[in-house]
Amino acid sequence: MKILAVDTFDIRFPTSRELDGSDAMNPDPDYSAAYVVLRTDSEFEGHGFTFTIGRGNEVCRAAIDALAPLVIGQDVDDLGEFARRLTHDSQIRWLGPEKGVIHLAAAAVINAAWDLAAKAVRKPVWRFLSEMSPERIVDAVDWRYLSDALTPDEALDILTAAVPGRSARMAEMLRDGFPAYTTSPGWLGYDDEKLTRLAKQAVADGYGQIKLKVGADLDDDIRRFALARAAVGPSIRIAVDANQRWDVDAAITWMKALAPFDPWWIEEPTSPDDILGHADIRRALATAGPGGKRVPVATGEHVANRVIFKQLLRAEAVDFVQLDACRVGGVNENIAILLLAAKFGVPVCPHAGGVGLCELVQHLSIFDYIAVSGDLADRAIEYVDHLHEHFIDPVVIYQGSYLVPRTAGFSAQMRAQSLARYAFPDGEAWQ
Amino acid sequence: MKILAVDTFDIRFPTSRELDGSDAMNPDPDYSAAYVVLRTDSEFEGHGFTFTIGRGNEVCRAAIDALAPLVIGQDVDDLGEFARRLTHDSQIRWLGPEKGVIHLAAAAVINAAWDLAAKAVRKPVWRFLSEMSPERIVDAVDWRYLSDALTPDEALDILTAAVPGRSARMAEMLRDGFPAYTTSPGWLGYDDEKLTRLAKQAVADGYGQIKLKVGADLDDDIRRFALARAAVGPSIRIAVDANQRWDVDAAITWMKALAPFDPWWIEEPTSPDDILGHADIRRALATAGPGGKRVPVATGEHVANRVIFKQLLRAEAVDFVQLDACRVGGVNENIAILLLAAKFGVPVCPHAGGVGLCELVQHLSIFDYIAVSGDLADRAIEYVDHLHEHFIDPVVIYQGSYLVPRTAGFSAQMRAQSLARYAFPDGEAWQ
Repeated sequence: MKILAVDTFDIRFPTSRELDGSDAMNPDPDYSAAYVVLRTDSEFEGHGFTFTIGRGNEVCRAAIDALAPLVIGQDVDDLGEFARRLTHDSQIRWLGPEKGVIHLAAAAVINAAWDLAAKAVRKPVWRFLSEMSPERIVDAVDWRYLSDALTPDEALDILTAAVPGRSARMAEMLRDGFPAYTTSPGWLGYDDEKLTRLAKQAVADGYGQIKLKVGADLDDDIRRFALARAAVGPSIRIAVDANQRWDVDAAITWMKALAPFDPWWIEEPTSPDDILGHADIRRALATAGPGGKRVPVATGEHVANRVIFKQLLRAEAVDFVQLDACRVGGVNENIAILLLAAKFGVPVCPHAGGVGLCELVQHLSIFDYIAVSGDLADRAIEYVDHLHEHFIDPVVIYQGSYLVPRTAGFSAQMRAQSLARYAFPDGEAWQ
Repeated sequence: MKILAVDTFDIRFPTSRELDGSDAMNPDPDYSAAYVVLRTDSEFEGHGFTFTIGRGNEVCRAAIDALAPLVIGQDVDDLGEFARRLTHDSQIRWLGPEKGVIHLAAAAVINAAWDLAAKAVRKPVWRFLSEMSPERIVDAVDWRYLSDALTPDEALDILTAAVPGRSARMAEMLRDGFPAYTTSPGWLGYDDEKLTRLAKQAVADGYGQIKLKVGADLDDDIRRFALARAAVGPSIRIAVDANQRWDVDAAITWMKALAPFDPWWIEEPTSPDDILGHADIRRALATAGPGGKRVPVATGEHVANRVIFKQLLRAEAVDFVQLDACRVGGVNENIAILLLAAKFGVPVCPHAGGVGLCELVQHLSIFDYIAVSGDLADRAIEYVDHLHEHFIDPVVIYQGSYLVPRTAGFSAQMRAQSLARYAFPDGEAWQ
């Protein structure tokens, strides 16, 4: 099975018209995908994408086009080698290295290759991964820059230790699904009535956790958090998310003011590059919660690569790792991140929402539970009820959990009608 | 003076044909520039570019095109506001934030704006900066994410303390120029004879420092370092540069083997994102040099932004800050980096070479000496004798120093013939 062509698409949804997805740093996102289809000499195609919020999506598409010559003529028998070919090309590496647009583009192509490889063996990606040998999983990782925190041998030990429990956990996942939390009530553009109504609805729908956007105005945040807490009661987890709005000191001050409402975590309190800043914030909030409990720190959706995650863990800067399916170098780099988190004993709660991120990350979390961490404690995948109708295999949520996908591939494929209608700037949605 | 149009160019030089610029991570670079011209309603144009090493240069050009709508119709009266407009656009910020292709593109546009603003007042950029009030310099910086390490008030104190000595240091610069070191002998693709010949030539030309590329093969590195040391003698500084080739432990082992030859610094020993890794390497090499002296650590050319530099300084991870003119967000973010380095007392020795980087960074170092650090100790700007002939105001080196540029602007403007001949893929050089 050889890749013969790489087709790319600039797909944008005009979400800013409804303020869906509005937060303190991103007031008017148009959820978008730089989308790629790997055409082969077989019956199978690989579909993948990276997520952006509008302007500049065409730059990601151009970056995927720049990577295309590296994959045309290749197969996907060795997905470790496939991914390294993209991230090690010396001239293209200069544009990152392993960060920003060129890494977003690599994610789209690498994820498409996993979609293709899983379809060819007629398995969903989570099962394809969960049935792989530990050795083959280790071979998929680019180990450069990791050995001071995690060696391939240590990773092999983690994966081998999980092998005996794989089948029981797989049965459990197929029966119960993977826990979700919902961000739908908490967008900053929603008024108090909508916030309260959606928070109550989330509990009624079976969610044990919701999330609120914060960081634009402290008085507003206090009022909104109080309303949400009153709406859901004391036992539902309420995480808050500042989307990088603060400097270190501001994060500490602001969160001490919100701490009495018992935040489950503070997400993206400052720059995703600021490892030492996150560590300072985490230390300062170690006893800031009700009864002296910790206000935990979470980040990850904008963390550029495994090297930054390695340091966040080494520096004890985070309580939750929020990997993103399309920000780092696709499945391969996310395997490295899952292994690092397992080594350091930190739960992974992936970033999702946007467009298609829920569809992708469910595979990674289910794999994490079955074959890596073997642990569900404090794990939940973000869920946002937007734009799933554009996928041919959309996520299914039942009683606050992701039901396990059964279709072969990465659940990444958009409907042809959606690719046509939301093509930017010529699709009907943009006329 | 309003910006009316933004013209972009994909310019590439086929340098890989001669192995100029070859190192352990970049064996065959084609030095390239994603080049931009800001056309205005005045007699002045702003020229800028970002540097890449070939493939993907078209992606940077596409990113500059994506930024163009943010600057058309704007003026350059407030260069702080101008730069923040580019880096704070919420949709485009998602593509970094402040890193990778979109930040390289922002650098090109921001530097072009400084070229334009300096030309309009008929000063070279170094003088334009060095004659600015401390308040105006502080206003040019984006202070977000810096306050835990450096506040605007502290910066104002640093700049104000330098005011009384400005005119004496300016006279000194105009008389003596700024010290340079040369990387020309040390490319990995050169044979021993060429290395020895060029090292001796560097000393004859008045340089007090040279640099060797290392990291591909330890035995080769030991042989080449020994040859270079024999060629230049004990008093000439020899820095070595691994271009991110190593993991942390490998960097320590390798540098302990090279330490007897008295390296002036080890540059880019590992990932530019690995702040804690650099700190570990620096600690491990604290007494590894001859007579128990330190083997210093340097990095910066691939450091994505001021947040990473802030942490390298906070973590005591580097002995030298090697800012790059086009990797971070242009002059504005480099002012922040110069101020951080001054606060932490670490010398700045900019990365240069490539195409046009020498032309740009000389302005920053001269400004640093005159108006920020006020210190020349251990400072030197990299110099590589490649591709200067394509600029209308090329650097001038005399007795191992950069002579101060006298022409208005940022020395960034390429000759029209070069823009035509090296246009990729249609220019004559690529036929």
